[in-house]
Amino acid sequence: MESQESNDPAAVTPVLMCGGVGTRLWPLSRRSYPKQFTSLFGRESLFQASARRFLGDCFAPPVVITNTEFRFIVTEQLAEIGIKPAIIMIEPEARNTAPATLAVSLFMQELNPDALILVVPADHVLPDMEMFQAAVATGMKPARSGDIVTFAVCPDRPETGYGYMELGEISDRGVVAVKRFVEKPDPAEAEALVASGRFFWNSGLLLFSSQTMADAFEAHASRLVKPVRDALSHATQDMGFLRLAPGPWSQAGNISVDYAVLEQSKRITAVPYTGTWSDLGGWDSVWAESMTDDQGVALTDHAYAIDCQDVLLRSESRHQVLVGLGLRDIIAVAMPDAVLVADKARAQDVKAAVQHLKDIQISQAEEFPREHRPWGYFEHLTRGPGFEVRRITINPGAALTLQSHSHRAEHWVVVAGGARVTADGHGQIVERNQSVFIPPDCRHRLENPGTDRLIIIEVRTGASLEEDDVVRYV
Amino acid sequence: MESQESNDPAAVTPVLMCGGVGTRLWPLSRRSYPKQFTSLFGRESLFQASARRFLGDCFAPPVVITNTEFRFIVTEQLAEIGIKPAIIMIEPEARNTAPATLAVSLFMQELNPDALILVVPADHVLPDMEMFQAAVATGMKPARSGDIVTFAVCPDRPETGYGYMELGEISDRGVVAVKRFVEKPDPAEAEALVASGRFFWNSGLLLFSSQTMADAFEAHASRLVKPVRDALSHATQDMGFLRLAPGPWSQAGNISVDYAVLEQSKRITAVPYTGTWSDLGGWDSVWAESMTDDQGVALTDHAYAIDCQDVLLRSESRHQVLVGLGLRDIIAVAMPDAVLVADKARAQDVKAAVQHLKDIQISQAEEFPREHRPWGYFEHLTRGPGFEVRRITINPGAALTLQSHSHRAEHWVVVAGGARVTADGHGQIVERNQSVFIPPDCRHRLENPGTDRLIIIEVRTGASLEEDDVVRYV
Repeated sequence: MESQESNDPAAVTPVLMCGGVGTRLWPLSRRSYPKQFTSLFGRESLFQASARRFLGDCFAPPVVITNTEFRFIVTEQLAEIGIKPAIIMIEPEARNTAPATLAVSLFMQELNPDALILVVPADHVLPDMEMFQAAVATGMKPARSGDIVTFAVCPDRPETGYGYMELGEISDRGVVAVKRFVEKPDPAEAEALVASGRFFWNSGLLLFSSQTMADAFEAHASRLVKPVRDALSHATQDMGFLRLAPGPWSQAGNISVDYAVLEQSKRITAVPYTGTWSDLGGWDSVWAESMTDDQGVALTDHAYAIDCQDVLLRSESRHQVLVGLGLRDIIAVAMPDAVLVADKARAQDVKAAVQHLKDIQISQAEEFPREHRPWGYFEHLTRGPGFEVRRITINPGAALTLQSHSHRAEHWVVVAGGARVTADGHGQIVERNQSVFIPPDCRHRLENPGTDRLIIIEVRTGASLEEDDVVRYV
Repeated sequence: MESQESNDPAAVTPVLMCGGVGTRLWPLSRRSYPKQFTSLFGRESLFQASARRFLGDCFAPPVVITNTEFRFIVTEQLAEIGIKPAIIMIEPEARNTAPATLAVSLFMQELNPDALILVVPADHVLPDMEMFQAAVATGMKPARSGDIVTFAVCPDRPETGYGYMELGEISDRGVVAVKRFVEKPDPAEAEALVASGRFFWNSGLLLFSSQTMADAFEAHASRLVKPVRDALSHATQDMGFLRLAPGPWSQAGNISVDYAVLEQSKRITAVPYTGTWSDLGGWDSVWAESMTDDQGVALTDHAYAIDCQDVLLRSESRHQVLVGLGLRDIIAVAMPDAVLVADKARAQDVKAAVQHLKDIQISQAEEFPREHRPWGYFEHLTRGPGFEVRRITINPGAALTLQSHSHRAEHWVVVAGGARVTADGHGQIVERNQSVFIPPDCRHRLENPGTDRLIIIEVRTGASLEEDDVVRYV
């Protein structure tokens, strides 16, 4: 990357799109905690890896676009890796990529009209950081001069899960013209596209100036402009979040930026990219991106393969062992509350399978045993008639609201960190290895005054253990 | 069954052999809680179903042969179904079927020399109770007159997992002569055996008089007689258990009764049996005995199959969902701490897979999350640095020993039933929804004085949580 550009602190603002649900990677990825936040490879989540991809002089702090449910996961995961976002923009409801792309373009026009915007889905794999940053640098000049720059990935197989782009001649702006977009092809068509040498995968990454994108929407999708502009102008700022106004937002069409703008515009160019890229659109992609042995076997820790070939065996818990025996082309993903076993060729149908589970009201279709809250998260350990046990993790400095319950009592045992507990006006510090009892109707408040995580084992007992048995006092 | 025999209360003493380990049904069946005690089909365990098969006038209370580890599971499961055994005989170590068969024969000679003995492995499936009792009735006359009566199952497929018997002419005692035994055959041989129409499966069930069996051992396996007789004469009686003497028992050969006696004796006859029978020797057998739909799909509750064929999908926990997608001839068994996914044709190799897990010291190879004790059982819920949470279930009237721990404290919350807790000499009743704290070095004792199960959530905290940090006071 040229040093001139690298020294411009506002050169490129990365926009991390992380509102997706990713049900094709069920059970690891669920509506309540989708794939971009999970540790698919190694310790970091895909979202964290995406955010760290844009550290460096040439990148401004990122804008994150997410939804209400994921906002605390976003702040927690960014804090873990020490990244402070420019803003976390909250979509009141999912509206595909066009409204979000327009919203961030209009927002950036106000904030920094000179900035380029790099829209990146936060669930992609791009392991070659230097090669990728070089590709971004290549795209900056044409983006400044008014192109919408895509990144075209050189295909290594006739993948049917991706869209394709037909590339033309190298333009005078140093990039390649995009002649047309092709939707996800069938297998025969994919073979032909790849064999032609002219068709590349559409990565979904976009680099553009805010003015270019705003103009493109005016030209090709003008019906989106008013609702998105209104959603922005009536947005509320709240604890570091910019919450778009739900009313106008609901009027914006549920449409992709490809369909709304890219397929209409004449100024679409592409930076060809020969590094590794995957959108991890299914367990077959995860298998393809995993380290496999010479039998094509990809394993996590605690997974064991005996006489298997071309399989992906994932145990997502260190307390759960997974054994595959004599399997071919099978994907197995084991979690303590949900297990998927699928023919690898059927990886794309996992989405429909999850929809089926949802239709028959299986909670695991969407929910995780771990539930995130502003102050941390909790996990269900066990329950029986009249009792329930949870493991509660409270972030340093965080506190639960002052509350009381009519029907249940709560026993808390502090097993890590220290707690400040207020009960009926009386405050006390509860250290590790101490416990406290909160009877029904007691007004109580739980805080973590320390700098380490506070972990509490909570045993709830009572005739009713419903979540809605709570009175909150502001 | 003839009424004359039915009215003899000591006519047949069933002997339930339940010391086996059954690793081929891992992960449901493990060394610490093998298949005969699990609910493979419906609510009852195989052991319970076996014990209930012999209720009726013609059967005496059962003798149970098991080992030290399973003795409390046996008493608990018999109590659940209201059966009081004649005796629970404990093998100090597993020595295959010959020493156990001889031991029970010698024991019964003393107790009731007229009784017939019916040896039944407690992990078999015999759903047609009336048909089976009729077969036993058919065998009683020849057994009384000195035959060792086997039960020959009419084969419905060329199974390679079973031994076969060649049957001859109907004898004058109303049963069929056994001409020879054939070990588990290879597939081609099995086809030929079944096609001949003369070969039946050897079920492993035996009916005989104690005198006949004692004589047969004297004649064909006399080296076993002294050690087994000594193990019996030095046996200790303890809480309703007859514990064979370990020293002499260890001198008895590790040999099957088939090999030691049956293949040598001239007086082996068979009752042909056309009802359903399975020894559930692998997950393929379980699949074969399960209710399947017209695609050959067998499912437990909480298991879902989408476009699957000839599969067995078992979820062994109501908190865990299992989804199979596009599978053919696959077995998947999911538990919260262990999952098996296997090619159905490889079902017999599960045993070797478990041995592999054991070799690399994976605890799930042998251990269960639920650990049984004389007073009940406990389950591990969660653990972390310096803490561990367990759910402890204590049977009515049961008590733990008086004990103390040097390094750990214990927080107990009673969530069902009521406890009597003695701490440093001071006794108190702890009701449901109350808790008690046991600091390090406190001499404590926990009892269930009530008639319902006592369930306690225990949170252990401390620098060391090892099981061996315990001093017991008698």
